[in-house]
This record gives sequence, structure tokens and C-alpha cells, in this order.
Amino acid sequence: MPMAYSADILDQLTQEYLPAIEKELVQGVSQTAHVGLAALHGMLAYHMGWEGEGAGPDARGKRIRPLLVILSCASAGGNWEQALPAASAVELVHNFSLIHDDIEDNSPLRHRRPTLWKLWGIPQAINAGDAMFALAHLEILRLEETISPNVAVRAAKLLQQTCLHLTQGQYLDLSYESRSNLTLDDYWPMISGKTAALVAACTQLGALVAGVDLERQNRFNEFGHYLGLAFQARDDLLGIWGDAELTGKSAESDLVTGKKSLPVLYGLSKKGAFAKRWSQDSISPDEVVYVARMLESEGGQSYSEQIAAKLTDQALQALISTHPEGAAGQALQQLVDRLLNRKV
Amino acid sequence: MPMAYSADILDQLTQEYLPAIEKELVQGVSQTAHVGLAALHGMLAYHMGWEGEGAGPDARGKRIRPLLVILSCASAGGNWEQALPAASAVELVHNFSLIHDDIEDNSPLRHRRPTLWKLWGIPQAINAGDAMFALAHLEILRLEETISPNVAVRAAKLLQQTCLHLTQGQYLDLSYESRSNLTLDDYWPMISGKTAALVAACTQLGALVAGVDLERQNRFNEFGHYLGLAFQARDDLLGIWGDAELTGKSAESDLVTGKKSLPVLYGLSKKGAFAKRWSQDSISPDEVVYVARMLESEGGQSYSEQIAAKLTDQALQALISTHPEGAAGQALQQLVDRLLNRKV
Repeated sequence: MPMAYSADILDQLTQEYLPAIEKELVQGVSQTAHVGLAALHGMLAYHMGWEGEGAGPDARGKRIRPLLVILSCASAGGNWEQALPAASAVELVHNFSLIHDDIEDNSPLRHRRPTLWKLWGIPQAINAGDAMFALAHLEILRLEETISPNVAVRAAKLLQQTCLHLTQGQYLDLSYESRSNLTLDDYWPMISGKTAALVAACTQLGALVAGVDLERQNRFNEFGHYLGLAFQARDDLLGIWGDAELTGKSAESDLVTGKKSLPVLYGLSKKGAFAKRWSQDSISPDEVVYVARMLESEGGQSYSEQIAAKLTDQALQALISTHPEGAAGQALQQLVDRLLNRKV
Repeated sequence: MPMAYSADILDQLTQEYLPAIEKELVQGVSQTAHVGLAALHGMLAYHMGWEGEGAGPDARGKRIRPLLVILSCASAGGNWEQALPAASAVELVHNFSLIHDDIEDNSPLRHRRPTLWKLWGIPQAINAGDAMFALAHLEILRLEETISPNVAVRAAKLLQQTCLHLTQGQYLDLSYESRSNLTLDDYWPMISGKTAALVAACTQLGALVAGVDLERQNRFNEFGHYLGLAFQARDDLLGIWGDAELTGKSAESDLVTGKKSLPVLYGLSKKGAFAKRWSQDSISPDEVVYVARMLESEGGQSYSEQIAAKLTDQALQALISTHPEGAAGQALQQLVDRLLNRKV
């Protein structure tokens, strides 16, 4: 991989791509703004971080997924503007799943703002999520306009298969709540569906739009798959030994919320003191430091660090195998470094 | 329209088409039956009436929508077998919306069986509906295999626009629950989205698959639109003055469930004794006969009958304008007659 680009090439490209992505998203969602339906549009615009109290960049998330589509397309030698419908579509799928997950997980806040169901009630929030789902697929079909009907069908099938995979991951996550005998083997199918499937779709969609052959598309898919898994393993580590712990926000610890994360499932597999404590009762913020140390002493942290490092390496190897080109290829490597080496 | 076919041509064709439709549906839904995900597949198979307690034809509904797709395709001169993915897709969209509507409307029963959310809880039922939604769109994209990528994109766009329209109708329906000033003007945009949009998509999809020009497709769309509206107006009449009333099942009356039906909105527009009683408190089964007579005396029944008759006539005129061909064309007319002249 050539190193001819500046150290902030990712930031430079992000500044170029993000406004175009946001514009495509706004146009896609505006299809709900029919006469008399301004309120439905308003719910979606609130969720997207464009309207309502607290609207702004902090309410929008990082738009990592659409950036991955665009960067993958450009690094595969494609015209990134042709990939905008795919970039917008994956972000809308991501947000559709967030709206429904927030209901399913009973989450009152997202990006420090009340969730849709908290403000509008569960029935309207389910329905708004369905509208976002339909908009996502109208977006991906716009690839017909930027490229061809054939590519639009390929991309739409890939995205719908991914949505099915998302629901399979979510099914497992929800079903684990009532299970007391979880082990490490239960982690990977859940995370493959909930996190890695959509990231893999992002990178493959970029390559598909660029028009590369199926073998190179599959390498892009593999890159996204490992990137998604590595990101999740890292996120799970930070959920117990990250910022919340360091800064005393114990109430936000994954140990308190009961998340079935990699370190936790490792600890349950060991059937030691941690597993015993976990099975008894929910963990209070006061106990977080103690229980985290218990899990650490049983090897949960070092095991997860090893897994995260291995997955990061696999992601980078897969990226190299895609033969990433030019500034976008360089930016993709920077994006991997930043995502997977973050401390908070 | 030629009258050369027997009086039971609809029944004959239904017997030919239904097994093929059901086979296509079973194959589509089987994509969720991955290893370890038999339970998610089981939820969908239960909802479709294939598995679990009470499974069987009575639990499946009449499959009217896929039949409309197939009959429209054949009556437009197309090869009905090519339309099977579209037929299956509209039925899956219909069932996705039922799964979510049952949650949103707090409905415990469908086809006299417990609803998904009653058996598996709201989170898993939302997620199962999402899986059904994704399956519907994977199905419509199968038109690529039976016809071409271009037709698959046209059909998928039409179906996604319809889904968006469904969510708009449902948004209005839910928002009316908290409004005390509803009038007749509020009825049509809700019903256009909730009922007529999908029926119009069925008839247009059949014509699209048959390969007719856009003008004739639009006439098929118009036929489905009026058929859907007429069906809903008739259904609303039966919900107050139909079987439940005649046989004493007052608890199932739309007056008790509080449905914003055509006669009810007519009565509210009149701002008379009915509107006053409706605004006070929910209506108990004991009061149904009395309140129904009140609405009848204010003209709610005769007005709705007139509207239903006019819409039925518009549906038949639109059907004639499509120039329906052969046995399927004759069967379509029989289907309209049966749907719109039913007494129970």
C-alpha cells in the first residue's frame, strides 16, 4: 500500500464525502414529508439528528457505515458519487434497526436524547421504524439511476439478505435474556448478525458499485466482516474497562446493563466466581469495580484483548487483500487504525 | 367482457393458483430456517398458519392479495407463473404489517389464534415482523429470475413505495386515537394508505409482470385502488351492522373496539347525539344495539351504503377499462362481485 498521502487523508476525504452523504439522506427521508404527514417526517428527522431538541452533529452518530461504502468504492477504483444511494441506504438500515432495538431493549436514551418510543410511544415508533426500512430500500434501488438495473438488483438483494441477518442476530440477543447457560459459542452468531453483517455489506456494496469482480467483492466483504467483529470486541472491552469505568460512570457499565458481551460470555464459560455472581442478581453501580476485577482475574480482559487484536489483524490483512487504491485506500487503513485503537 | 366461462371459473382458477402461491411462500420464508434459528422461522411459520396450535387453512386468511396479482397478470395476457414472486411478496408485506399492527393495536387474537406478541412478547414480535419485511423484498427481487432485472427494479420500487404508503396510513390511524375532532375528511387518506395502496399494488404488479404499457398498468392500479376502498367501506358497514350484530357478538362490534370506520366518522361529522355519545366514553357491548340505531337514524348506514355502492361501481368500471382477458378476466369480475356483495 503506497504511503504517498498525508497523515490526515481520512479527515480530508471525510470532509468531502460527509456533506454529500447527508444531502442524499435528507433527500431520501423527505419522501415521507407529504401533505398532512409532516409529523411522521418529523419523527424520522428527529431520529436522524436533524430536527428537534438536541439536533446537530452530536445527535447523528459518526456516519461510519456510509463512509465505509464510499471509501470502499473509491479504493476499488470506482466513482464514489455513484455509490451515494448505497451509502445512504446502509445508514437508513442502521437507523431503522436502532429505532426498533431501542424499543426491544427498553432504552430511553440514544446520543443523550430521548428515543423515539419515549417521545411518541411504542406504536408510533414501531411504525416510524418501518417507514425508515422502506426508505432504505427505495434508496438502494436508486442505484438503477446512478449505474444500472442489474447492479441495483444485486445491491438490493445483498442489503435485504443483510437485514435478514440483522433480525437473526437480534433474535439471538433477545432469546439470550432468558437463558442461564450461555457460553462463548453463543457470542459469534449473535455478533455476526447484529454488527458484522451490516459492516460487511457496506464494504462489499462499495466494491459492487465500483464494478469489480465477485472474488474481489468477497475480499471486501471479508474485510468488513472482520472490521465489524474487531470493532465489537473492542467496544465490549470498553464497555467494562473503558471510559465509563475510568471516569466513574459506573451506571453505564455493561456489567450494570447486563449486556452479553465477549468478556462476560468468557467469564460465564469459566463457571467460576464471576459466573456465580452474574447468575444471582443484576449488578449495581456500586459493585462494578469489584465485579470487573473479578472478571479480570479470571482472564476475561486478557482473553478479549487477544481476540480483539487477532480480529484487528485479520481485518487489516483482508483490507490488504482487496488491493486498496489511492487516497481512499490509505484513508481506509487510517479508519481501521482509529476505530480499533481507540481508548475511549 | 366475454361470458364464455363457467360460473365457478374463479373457484377453478383459485384451486390451480393457490397451491403454487403457498409453495412460493413456504420457500420464501424458509430462508429464515438456518441452523440455530429454527425458532425465528417457527414464529413466522406460526403467523403464516403453517405451524403451531390451530395451524391450517382457517389460520391463513384467504390469500386474496396474491390471487389478485396472479389473476391480474393472467388477465393482462401474461404468464401467471412468472408473477409468483410478486404474489408471494405482497402476501408477506401484508403479513409483516399484520404482525406490527397487532402490537400497535394491542390485539390479542388474529384468525382466532393468539397473536405473535401475545406468545413471544413484543420485542421478539417486532423483530419477527422485520424479518418478514426483509423476506418480502427478497421475494419481489426474484422477479429478476422469472423475467428481468429491469422488471424486478420497477416492481421492487412499486412495492417499497406501497410500504411507505402503508406506514403513512398507519401513522394517521394511530394519531387519530388522541384526536376528538375527527371528520369524514380524515377517513380517506388513512384508508388509502392502510388498505387501498396494497390492493392497488397487487393489480398493478400483475400488469407490470405481464409487460403491458404504463397506461394500462395505471388502469390496473386504479382498479385495485377502488376495489380496496370499496372493500374497506363494505367491511366498515359489516363491522357495525353485520354478522357480529346479527348473531349477538356485540363485543366484536367496531363500536366497542372504537374503530374509526366510515359510518363512525360520518356520525362524528354530523355532531349530533351519536357524536356526543362517542366522545364521552367507550361503548359497552350492552349499548351496541342502541348506539348502532342512533347512528343509523342520523344517516350513517345509508350514507356508507351509498359510498360503498359508488366505489364498487368505480371498481367495476376500472376493471372493464383494463380490458381483462380470458378466464382470468372473468374470474376477476367474479372476485369483485363476491368481495363486495358479501353479507357477512
